[in-house]
Amino acid sequence: MQSEIEKAKILIESLPYIRKFSNQTIVIKYGGHAMRDEGLKKSFALDIILMQYVGLVPIVVHGGGPQIGRVLEKMGIKSSFHKGMRVTDSETMEVVEMVLVGKVNKDIVGLINQHGGRSVGLCGKDGGLIQAKKLSSSTEIEDMGMVGQVELINPSILETLKNKHFIPVIAPVGVGPHGETYNINADLVAGKIASATKAKKLILLTDVEGINDDKGKLIPSLSTGEAQYMVDKGLISGGMIPKVNCCIEALKEGVEKAHIIDGRIEHAILLEIFTDKGIGTEIVA
Amino acid sequence: MQSEIEKAKILIESLPYIRKFSNQTIVIKYGGHAMRDEGLKKSFALDIILMQYVGLVPIVVHGGGPQIGRVLEKMGIKSSFHKGMRVTDSETMEVVEMVLVGKVNKDIVGLINQHGGRSVGLCGKDGGLIQAKKLSSSTEIEDMGMVGQVELINPSILETLKNKHFIPVIAPVGVGPHGETYNINADLVAGKIASATKAKKLILLTDVEGINDDKGKLIPSLSTGEAQYMVDKGLISGGMIPKVNCCIEALKEGVEKAHIIDGRIEHAILLEIFTDKGIGTEIVA
Amino acid sequence: MQSEIEKAKILIESLPYIRKFSNQTIVIKYGGHAMRDEGLKKSFALDIILMQYVGLVPIVVHGGGPQIGRVLEKMGIKSSFHKGMRVTDSETMEVVEMVLVGKVNKDIVGLINQHGGRSVGLCGKDGGLIQAKKLSSSTEIEDMGMVGQVELINPSILETLKNKHFIPVIAPVGVGPHGETYNINADLVAGKIASATKAKKLILLTDVEGINDDKGKLIPSLSTGEAQYMVDKGLISGGMIPKVNCCIEALKEGVEKAHIIDGRIEHAILLEIFTDKGIGTEIVA
Amino acid sequence: MQSEIEKAKILIESLPYIRKFSNQTIVIKYGGHAMRDEGLKKSFALDIILMQYVGLVPIVVHGGGPQIGRVLEKMGIKSSFHKGMRVTDSETMEVVEMVLVGKVNKDIVGLINQHGGRSVGLCGKDGGLIQAKKLSSSTEIEDMGMVGQVELINPSILETLKNKHFIPVIAPVGVGPHGETYNINADLVAGKIASATKAKKLILLTDVEGINDDKGKLIPSLSTGEAQYMVDKGLISGGMIPKVNCCIEALKEGVEKAHIIDGRIEHAILLEIFTDKGIGTEIVA
Amino acid sequence: MQSEIEKAKILIESLPYIRKFSNQTIVIKYGGHAMRDEGLKKSFALDIILMQYVGLVPIVVHGGGPQIGRVLEKMGIKSSFHKGMRVTDSETMEVVEMVLVGKVNKDIVGLINQHGGRSVGLCGKDGGLIQAKKLSSSTEIEDMGMVGQVELINPSILETLKNKHFIPVIAPVGVGPHGETYNINADLVAGKIASATKAKKLILLTDVEGINDDKGKLIPSLSTGEAQYMVDKGLISGGMIPKVNCCIEALKEGVEKAHIIDGRIEHAILLEIFTDKGIGTEIVA
Amino acid sequence: MQSEIEKAKILIESLPYIRKFSNQTIVIKYGGHAMRDEGLKKSFALDIILMQYVGLVPIVVHGGGPQIGRVLEKMGIKSSFHKGMRVTDSETMEVVEMVLVGKVNKDIVGLINQHGGRSVGLCGKDGGLIQAKKLSSSTEIEDMGMVGQVELINPSILETLKNKHFIPVIAPVGVGPHGETYNINADLVAGKIASATKAKKLILLTDVEGINDDKGKLIPSLSTGEAQYMVDKGLISGGMIPKVNCCIEALKEGVEKAHIIDGRIEHAILLEIFTDKGIGTEIVA
Repeated sequence: MQSEIEKAKILIESLPYIRKFSNQTIVIKYGGHAMRDEGLKKSFALDIILMQYVGLVPIVVHGGGPQIGRVLEKMGIKSSFHKGMRVTDSETMEVVEMVLVGKVNKDIVGLINQHGGRSVGLCGKDGGLIQAKKLSSSTEIEDMGMVGQVELINPSILETLKNKHFIPVIAPVGVGPHGETYNINADLVAGKIASATKAKKLILLTDVEGINDDKGKLIPSLSTGEAQYMVDKGLISGGMIPKVNCCIEALKEGVEKAHIIDGRIEHAILLEIFTDKGIGTEIVA
Repeated sequence: MQSEIEKAKILIESLPYIRKFSNQTIVIKYGGHAMRDEGLKKSFALDIILMQYVGLVPIVVHGGGPQIGRVLEKMGIKSSFHKGMRVTDSETMEVVEMVLVGKVNKDIVGLINQHGGRSVGLCGKDGGLIQAKKLSSSTEIEDMGMVGQVELINPSILETLKNKHFIPVIAPVGVGPHGETYNINADLVAGKIASATKAKKLILLTDVEGINDDKGKLIPSLSTGEAQYMVDKGLISGGMIPKVNCCIEALKEGVEKAHIIDGRIEHAILLEIFTDKGIGTEIVA
Repeated sequence: MQSEIEKAKILIESLPYIRKFSNQTIVIKYGGHAMRDEGLKKSFALDIILMQYVGLVPIVVHGGGPQIGRVLEKMGIKSSFHKGMRVTDSETMEVVEMVLVGKVNKDIVGLINQHGGRSVGLCGKDGGLIQAKKLSSSTEIEDMGMVGQVELINPSILETLKNKHFIPVIAPVGVGPHGETYNINADLVAGKIASATKAKKLILLTDVEGINDDKGKLIPSLSTGEAQYMVDKGLISGGMIPKVNCCIEALKEGVEKAHIIDGRIEHAILLEIFTDKGIGTEIVA
Repeated sequence: MQSEIEKAKILIESLPYIRKFSNQTIVIKYGGHAMRDEGLKKSFALDIILMQYVGLVPIVVHGGGPQIGRVLEKMGIKSSFHKGMRVTDSETMEVVEMVLVGKVNKDIVGLINQHGGRSVGLCGKDGGLIQAKKLSSSTEIEDMGMVGQVELINPSILETLKNKHFIPVIAPVGVGPHGETYNINADLVAGKIASATKAKKLILLTDVEGINDDKGKLIPSLSTGEAQYMVDKGLISGGMIPKVNCCIEALKEGVEKAHIIDGRIEHAILLEIFTDKGIGTEIVA
Repeated sequence: MQSEIEKAKILIESLPYIRKFSNQTIVIKYGGHAMRDEGLKKSFALDIILMQYVGLVPIVVHGGGPQIGRVLEKMGIKSSFHKGMRVTDSETMEVVEMVLVGKVNKDIVGLINQHGGRSVGLCGKDGGLIQAKKLSSSTEIEDMGMVGQVELINPSILETLKNKHFIPVIAPVGVGPHGETYNINADLVAGKIASATKAKKLILLTDVEGINDDKGKLIPSLSTGEAQYMVDKGLISGGMIPKVNCCIEALKEGVEKAHIIDGRIEHAILLEIFTDKGIGTEIVA
Repeated sequence: MQSEIEKAKILIESLPYIRKFSNQTIVIKYGGHAMRDEGLKKSFALDIILMQYVGLVPIVVHGGGPQIGRVLEKMGIKSSFHKGMRVTDSETMEVVEMVLVGKVNKDIVGLINQHGGRSVGLCGKDGGLIQAKKLSSSTEIEDMGMVGQVELINPSILETLKNKHFIPVIAPVGVGPHGETYNINADLVAGKIASATKAKKLILLTDVEGINDDKGKLIPSLSTGEAQYMVDKGLISGGMIPKVNCCIEALKEGVEKAHIIDGRIEHAILLEIFTDKGIGTEIVA
């Protein structure tokens, strides 16, 4: 019996967080290991469903690099990378869209629904959700092809789904002014969705512990100023740079907190939202 | 970190229950030790608030015998008991009402609000909630005075409060056709409120473990037939008889399950609702 | 027949007032003789119910001094008075709350409902209605104990009841930041409730004719400036001072008119609201 | 002051009626002397407005014989009568429509609005309110021309106006399947409107005291059976026959009470609805 | 089949206009030849109904000079004209109201309903729609009698009808502060109704092609500045002057475009709204 | 000008159909030539958008055989056919889903949005729309793999989108009880969606003229009895059999009319819905 009472106490510990985030939007970038490991996939689905049942409003944005690679390979299409991004010609773009929207997105929708949620998959074309344009980068020589950036988020389909308690799962594919399809970095889409929906939190699931200091020790909390300083001084490097940048931008546009957390931990999202401890690195406005 | 993950898993364990009771009314009879011990009082308040935050609809009905006794004593009013019920003349009734409605009820309201809930206290006069009449008992010689029984529950004030997410706390005082005030057994009121609000569960907090068999061992589950048999055969005795009877009646009127649980256990309500184990004795239709 | 036609004409006379106050809140401080005399009690109840049926929104705030005294006496608790207010230690406070909330309030609720209304009793704890603190009075030597003043009115429960056409009846008991209970002057509570609900009128039922001039003649109408002048010059005295002060404050906070009227007259409230003549003294912004 | 209190008591006397008819539809056939005398016109307008302000739903249907006659005369159009109804050829019909809809109806609308109501005039063409056909009368030799009878009431425009608290004023002109215009007896239209709107009461304002017995004494109340008997036995005669018949029919179709009252009495409608005495003859189902 | 496909293409051509004017109010002044010719009447009714079915919000305002003249003549009432307006004494005003409201208005209502629409006729008295006063004209010697001008439009009845998809048809009769009836120029009423309802377009159906230049050639488009210049310089004359003036005023008050079109062309309204070509003269802000 | 008037008349011709189908659901199976030809694609998109703007509720279900074949070929996956259906092992199923959901579906969504509509793509997993199971066919020897049939349509996501005027575009992929993905015939899905949404019409776009009689002449209309007879007697053959069967079934489940029409004709859908002529073969209940 005593252990049962301990369980009840743990439920009660979550009460201040449930209250605080009641009816608040939380945008989660889902990807990496958490999207491949069967145990982590289940723990992710349950976290999202629990969030919604206790009154929060989760929105999922996902990536899908590895799956794209495998299909391209099978189809004998070669692709090069530039600064971590896939150079995307139109043949490649077609495969990217098919895999992200027709495979990865629907697997996540199926996963959540299979565990008892009610989710609906979207890409940037649905309801004109993600208006995009070609990634502009004055200093770039390389033409990245159909790699895009977000022009505008049209959140009306998200509001429609929210009002009827459907959980949106978004593939990072945007649509251009002439109907063209753009491949956009998922962290970036998550950040923009968070701003457009006035989200309380942006959570990026990664395959690392968080942001480390120069001694390799996890930094639990950073202000945007500190985070910017670390980027400027080269103290953050590689794939973490765009993540931190899109956190900083989301915070500037009104999101309250951004979190870079370790998706390899079971129930990482719940830990972040519902416990005193928190995990990974938070960046605050 | 591992212990944190365990906590998250415990949250997840509650998911099937949160889903099952989402938007369902749960009527809790609050009384006894749980209403006196400071620790238990806090655990009760948090349980009720959590229930509401995760989407359930709790309604509290309370008793208050000991507090009434103390005030009567101070005022030098003597009262006799008959079959466990206080013979209630009109002078006594006035004190009963003052204590239940003006003291016990508002203490509970204050307790819940102090811990972050939004509750409103009611007695049977408010919005005509509990229409009552004199307790009729053909075989009785003793005149019980203003001891009453429920004629009709008018749930409109409960619906009004539910729609705006206020938690009703109800004192077991009814109003007669000519405006007279009746003292009604709180278990009985809880049962009738449960039927009238089409509650999913009726939970009676007691100062015992539950219903025991003839060897003194707790019986975890009874059908209404079995419960009736035990009452008829005298296997249930004393103060437990009216409790079991009002459970049986509530189940007949459409409540799905009734529970007689041990209010001396911390978070007894959460344990009953949100864990696999359950506690005390359940009676099912 | 002619007398019947006269009756119809009297109904018609009320039309401009019904139209003017349609859907407007009127806060009535109920107390004194009107709360003791059986005939006046009935006339009060009918006035309130009629107001609501013809489209106004009445809110009742009541006092209860004499009833408190009687119970304190029975319980052998002595209490002293300072400047017309009862010095309220915590033992006394408990009795004050019991009597106001558990006896006086529910008697009024019962009275209104008995005559066909739908009223609900509230104290300052219900829905966090009256946030209070200890009465601060820099110049006071005497510690008044749990005598409080209004910090904030949270009108959400009043709006909830209004939308479903319940008539709120409010006991002047407030709740402090740590859950403590405060005894507050009922006129003061009525004034604050009137401001918070943007009431059109504040009506104080008293046991005098109204405010008199220095020749003892009733003054039918005063501006706030004139009323303030009379208070400052000592032309108003005794128990009338706090009443006038709380009228002035309510008018400053947006209430349109305040009335100090003679509750000993049958249907005093209707006379004030629905006839050309008006009664007592009105104070206008 | 005493006379003022008497006034308030008279207001209170109306309370049971206000409550009883709250949100109920009352259809009033307006005509005769009450439509010509300036004092009675004003008393009618005020009665209707008061009804609406205190929560009832009045619908006015009017006649207009004398005004039609005057215009026909001015235009040099002769018309004959048959059994009290004007034989209506198409030239006459055009005048009937102009006068009823363009003159009488708008005068009543203006009258009500001028006294502070919000009314909207309608004829049977507006929103397809009154679907009509040629009056069929197997035993008639005379062709009555465009005299019609009600086929169907389409109450959607009445519901639209009711929801926004406009008072409908209806001219008894119907529209045939091919768009033709019919002149219909106003009592008949009032009865059909009452059935179609599930009215609580149908009130016919006449220029007589009510229905008299064979000694010329007013009969205060009749059952439909008794009324039918009186018609069958010739105890009711002349213009009263169609009035009684349309009351009987309305009662059969669900209207609760029909009243034939004396429109020459000031505030006749209020007297009927809001006083114990009632006036004229009521016919009850 | 090919001709059928051509038809479908024509439907598709209307799509941009349907989208542009979706849920927008269009005020149409109906009069002249289009109100007399049977074929044009039908084409008008169908145009209005189609507009509504495809999501626009049409409001019709009509004139009725010729019909008034005929009835005045029959009744032997003489009337003089001053600057194109009928001098309207009170006897004449009565006829004007009867004809406009009781004949012309209901004919149009009947016409629209007969073709499958749901229209409701209104005059300025209904719901207090058109508040008017005596036409003031400092330079006038002639007393025009009951000729009025618009003081205020009270659009609440129009909004009520719009929400339930009734088509309002408005007779240009206004009501003065003392209930007096005013005869107002229909173009003027249409302009004021357009401003008050924030209409997208004001369309005046006339018996001419539009506004011509000094060589008699139709001018397809004018700015308000150009239109004002033409009026000032006398390049627009006669009955066209008040029409142009009321267009200019409506545009100043927020209407987007005003159109003076040739009502003698079948489906003139549809041509104006749903085709690329447009007809007549448009005046733009 | 005359040709413009002809255009307006053509718009007017569509009025009876717009009225008849106002707010009615129309399910369109989109496929074949109409999904490949650029001109037909545009005409399809415009037809769907126009339908919605004029008040109908279109739902699109699409196939995608040829596109699937091309991708399978590129990936070197071979697939066999049995009775016109692709034997679908799990590797093939993955490609089918990717192509239908990630390519074909989003191309259609993009097409409609590009022309000004607001559409959202769905597969059977989204919101649990299409609950499926393995196609059961007692007489079959061949195992068709992941070819499925509809168990249940859960229309809640369709209602959500309808209320906010999004056009749903559905890929015929279902989800099994254990989350497995099924490939379902698109005609069949269209028929089931039509029944579940109580559609007025089911329209199948094909690459033939319609159903022909034994002389090869188009049959414009068939009863379900006649259609069944033709199937039973072998008068309908090949790919037309399942189409006719799913029409018959939809009609039995309450759809009013089913149409097999020639998608090679421009604006085939508009022709069917908005013109007197109709095209292809209709089957009526």
